[in-house]
Amino acid sequence: MQKIAVLTSGGDAPGMNAAVRAVVRACAAHAGIAAVGVRRGYEGLMAGDFVTLGARDVANVLQRGGTMLRTARSKAFMTTEGRAQAAQHLRDQGIDGLVVIGGDGSFRGAECLAQEHGLAVVGLPGTIDNDLYGTDYSIGYLTAIETAVEALDKLRDTGASHERTFIIEVMGRRAGHIALDVALAGGAEDVFIPEDPRPASAVLEVIEQAHARGKTSIIIVVAEGYPGGGAQLQQTIEAHTGHQTRLAVLGHIQRGGRPAVGDRILASRLGAAAVEALLGGQRNIMLGMCHQQIKATPLYEAYSQRKAINQANYDCLRTLGV
Amino acid sequence: MQKIAVLTSGGDAPGMNAAVRAVVRACAAHAGIAAVGVRRGYEGLMAGDFVTLGARDVANVLQRGGTMLRTARSKAFMTTEGRAQAAQHLRDQGIDGLVVIGGDGSFRGAECLAQEHGLAVVGLPGTIDNDLYGTDYSIGYLTAIETAVEALDKLRDTGASHERTFIIEVMGRRAGHIALDVALAGGAEDVFIPEDPRPASAVLEVIEQAHARGKTSIIIVVAEGYPGGGAQLQQTIEAHTGHQTRLAVLGHIQRGGRPAVGDRILASRLGAAAVEALLGGQRNIMLGMCHQQIKATPLYEAYSQRKAINQANYDCLRTLGV
Amino acid sequence: MQKIAVLTSGGDAPGMNAAVRAVVRACAAHAGIAAVGVRRGYEGLMAGDFVTLGARDVANVLQRGGTMLRTARSKAFMTTEGRAQAAQHLRDQGIDGLVVIGGDGSFRGAECLAQEHGLAVVGLPGTIDNDLYGTDYSIGYLTAIETAVEALDKLRDTGASHERTFIIEVMGRRAGHIALDVALAGGAEDVFIPEDPRPASAVLEVIEQAHARGKTSIIIVVAEGYPGGGAQLQQTIEAHTGHQTRLAVLGHIQRGGRPAVGDRILASRLGAAAVEALLGGQRNIMLGMCHQQIKATPLYEAYSQRKAINQANYDCLRTLGV
Amino acid sequence: MQKIAVLTSGGDAPGMNAAVRAVVRACAAHAGIAAVGVRRGYEGLMAGDFVTLGARDVANVLQRGGTMLRTARSKAFMTTEGRAQAAQHLRDQGIDGLVVIGGDGSFRGAECLAQEHGLAVVGLPGTIDNDLYGTDYSIGYLTAIETAVEALDKLRDTGASHERTFIIEVMGRRAGHIALDVALAGGAEDVFIPEDPRPASAVLEVIEQAHARGKTSIIIVVAEGYPGGGAQLQQTIEAHTGHQTRLAVLGHIQRGGRPAVGDRILASRLGAAAVEALLGGQRNIMLGMCHQQIKATPLYEAYSQRKAINQANYDCLRTLGV
Repeated sequence: MQKIAVLTSGGDAPGMNAAVRAVVRACAAHAGIAAVGVRRGYEGLMAGDFVTLGARDVANVLQRGGTMLRTARSKAFMTTEGRAQAAQHLRDQGIDGLVVIGGDGSFRGAECLAQEHGLAVVGLPGTIDNDLYGTDYSIGYLTAIETAVEALDKLRDTGASHERTFIIEVMGRRAGHIALDVALAGGAEDVFIPEDPRPASAVLEVIEQAHARGKTSIIIVVAEGYPGGGAQLQQTIEAHTGHQTRLAVLGHIQRGGRPAVGDRILASRLGAAAVEALLGGQRNIMLGMCHQQIKATPLYEAYSQRKAINQANYDCLRTLGV
Repeated sequence: MQKIAVLTSGGDAPGMNAAVRAVVRACAAHAGIAAVGVRRGYEGLMAGDFVTLGARDVANVLQRGGTMLRTARSKAFMTTEGRAQAAQHLRDQGIDGLVVIGGDGSFRGAECLAQEHGLAVVGLPGTIDNDLYGTDYSIGYLTAIETAVEALDKLRDTGASHERTFIIEVMGRRAGHIALDVALAGGAEDVFIPEDPRPASAVLEVIEQAHARGKTSIIIVVAEGYPGGGAQLQQTIEAHTGHQTRLAVLGHIQRGGRPAVGDRILASRLGAAAVEALLGGQRNIMLGMCHQQIKATPLYEAYSQRKAINQANYDCLRTLGV
Repeated sequence: MQKIAVLTSGGDAPGMNAAVRAVVRACAAHAGIAAVGVRRGYEGLMAGDFVTLGARDVANVLQRGGTMLRTARSKAFMTTEGRAQAAQHLRDQGIDGLVVIGGDGSFRGAECLAQEHGLAVVGLPGTIDNDLYGTDYSIGYLTAIETAVEALDKLRDTGASHERTFIIEVMGRRAGHIALDVALAGGAEDVFIPEDPRPASAVLEVIEQAHARGKTSIIIVVAEGYPGGGAQLQQTIEAHTGHQTRLAVLGHIQRGGRPAVGDRILASRLGAAAVEALLGGQRNIMLGMCHQQIKATPLYEAYSQRKAINQANYDCLRTLGV
Repeated sequence: MQKIAVLTSGGDAPGMNAAVRAVVRACAAHAGIAAVGVRRGYEGLMAGDFVTLGARDVANVLQRGGTMLRTARSKAFMTTEGRAQAAQHLRDQGIDGLVVIGGDGSFRGAECLAQEHGLAVVGLPGTIDNDLYGTDYSIGYLTAIETAVEALDKLRDTGASHERTFIIEVMGRRAGHIALDVALAGGAEDVFIPEDPRPASAVLEVIEQAHARGKTSIIIVVAEGYPGGGAQLQQTIEAHTGHQTRLAVLGHIQRGGRPAVGDRILASRLGAAAVEALLGGQRNIMLGMCHQQIKATPLYEAYSQRKAINQANYDCLRTLGV
């Protein structure tokens, strides 16, 4: 192996730059291994939008949000022709290894590329949703929950001042990881997540109990993937009680900002490990971090399984909401 | 004058606690002057929900968002009967001066109370919208724009990574102060405000120009008070171009959080000045800060006039958007 | 068991309030279990400085730095007489369980109290240094490293602008956990820690290599417990090279601030688990979190052993410094 | 005028990038006007270290700390020969206007260059110390005080938890602006500044009064330019009382970080105005912002006079410290 390419794919996540830097620096630490950045994910891979990256080219990016390589979602790469085009560009450049930083959709594409064209591929989990199997956390998740809790703290200020109920909708189309951790860390009264799709009317009991306990301001967190989202809860409350209710949809701010320490360390470790894995002959795996140790999972398993929510945290939230 | 009450009214704003602290401490600095906090604004005034506040009772609140006295909007106080009830409570407690921290609606109520019951009233400008006449800034504004720009910076990360257009809607029902300063400080391509209600189609030219200039990600700020708000702009862009457009409504996070330095200093100075003004025999005024000096404005003027936006900033935004 | 007391001891750490809240709320969730707060650690325990705490008394403290119970270091409690006095106060109040949030010194005291007076004691790891055995992280650590990395990022701005070398001294008298994680997350060129007491002259090679690699600004992190601290490194560099070197001692800011999400969740889980453990008959243990699961360690082991630094992170730092 | 150069000089300050961007963009907004960046201040000017800057080259820098052009302090430029060399480079490049962003030392050099070589020069106030005459604020100041107050808030957490006295030393070699505003916004008990060099023993009275008022934790802010600095106060307190006292020297973190909103707007307005001034034939002036309006001051006045501290803020601090 002499040339390793790296790309970021799917939704951007804070820490992706740290992972790119780590891949590039780990290549530079080995004599004779060159690193190449691919711009705009699979779109750029099909267009041959490559840039050679040396150790100094990734200086001062570790602390920056977003991805210096940019990212995109690509339909064309989902086709055999698209991948053939990408493979041709890789061969033309003499690239024999590829690090894909992204989520499960990106891993599916990477595996097809590997199988169809014999490319050595390593995936790194990069998605704020944290629902990837095979790693305790995915790159971006820890920053996203810090950002969301910071917003929740601000809403608490105004909620407490007005004795109001706030419903806070956070990201997570299929998974409630963000919602649950934000609720627990933010001291919310309850959380509604897709993994436990209780009827929206359950929120009425939460409100009632909170008032019975003497609470004057109430915070409820909901994942965007909960059926109906925050709007459903808001309508339910307003239809059944006179209690003033505000809905805050945090949205894309959860994707940006300086990466949190945990994401920087995770991304740095995984980026360096990806290069070692490729040089060591490993292929078609996703590298994750479990119990502070690098763990390899076959790409197929990584994208076909889902990580369950932390049940103990879910239980703890209810206990502490008294 | 022997007893001065203080309340926060209308929407909460960061720095209100600093103002309450300053009123209480300035009372404590004068022998024989007592301070009383009124909870939940005019609602609490009508209910006699009072608490005596000494210098130590306002320790460690300066840096906190929201308002320790809580706040509310009161319809009952808009009636003669409501105000008579409030005045009776004030007389019962021997309170002869009142500091009202809030916006124009609160000042209207304060003036009625003063005229109908001879109470000495001083208003302090507390609203994140910054549209009050008679002060360069109102308490809460500087924090709100910091919060909004921090969110914009995060959206810029993800916007740049995806080469997307973002429309960011900030608070300001009648005024574009927040929107304009956020756009200028955030390096946005343009801003849409109620004071200059251009047709939504104007956004198409902004997009076109930005692309012609080689920009791949675009940020447009809009005040909630611009006709149709951010949704109107989003629909216009999506209806006329294929360019992917995201709308972020920042909402109530702009009201919370640790107050910025400027809000703390402004609130501290105004709170102390309010006590001096009452002791010096001034009545029915709003105190503001203009050119770093305390300035008194008759309450009537404060709520009947509006502050114009900063035209030079508006012009500068366009120049720097090239 | 009917009454459980909680105290914070030793150096304060962000997240202690979340732990106190969790203890109190977990008691409230059990009918018939009362919670008592002890002010100023063992000092307050010996003075009988107690306060009954209900669920509402710990509202709105989760997100606050410091400790609402205050803390202190106590010499008197290190004596048999001191502990006898404390035990008498506990008996007088009918307290039969005690949760001690602190570090190894606090745990030694707790174990003596337990052995001499038969009190049921559970320790929770609360120290920013993270050197306690039996838990992946101690409460406060994750916040401390976020704060330190935020400072490092700022120093990087000015270091890069001036093409300067910065030495950043972080907390950790006996342990390099903070220093190592801050260096890795901050993209520092190297780290000096007590666990690997290389001679100060080693820093000269770091500087030389960095310059050879074309770096114009250099950041080196050092734990306060490294022999000679940051001052030693600064003097060594300045004595042997003409390179301008600044030393930044971060100091106590690392102890304060809103707790990070990780600390809030850790503290919440541990606080709730401490109550369950006491009710379940467990005694003289420290509860920690290992691999996202609660783990009990005998107090004796917790304070007599030390956690080793993460060698893989240490290695990774060197790889990525190229 | 056809080509305008811009450089940053002296200590870096947050917002310098926003000013550089504004100069470049304002040039780009005029057909036929080119912008040139000079790297490393006067050092780069003497070395001819120039880079042509178009509108896109300053994209995405507005929000970044430090200065993309880097900065330096130059002794050689203080000589006639040094300036002749610089002037030659400027003539060679066809540069007929120069914008210097820096402090009073930088303005002295700029004026010499202007007088000796007929160059059109405009200065912009860029220093966190805020002691420049002719502007309400200098670029960087508002960020520096936000950073310092954020640190103070964190120290307050730990100070309150331990019932300790903290002395916080902030930047300001000759001026107490930072110290005073930080003290007022941070709720400090007192401030010691070079403009009012009270004997260090005055701090004893502050401590005594604070204790008499029932305060258990005390915060005192001191400017580095106060005789003896924070160390002098710490020694005085510890020599005369048994009260535990911590000294925190904030140092260079005050120079870094994302610029605050106020600095971004100030820098944007001033940068654009500098280009207009040069094109309008103005020379040898510093542009500042007074009362939200651009104001020109002869360079000579800008560096030979000093801005006085805000006496009303100084008085207010004492009133609110009760």
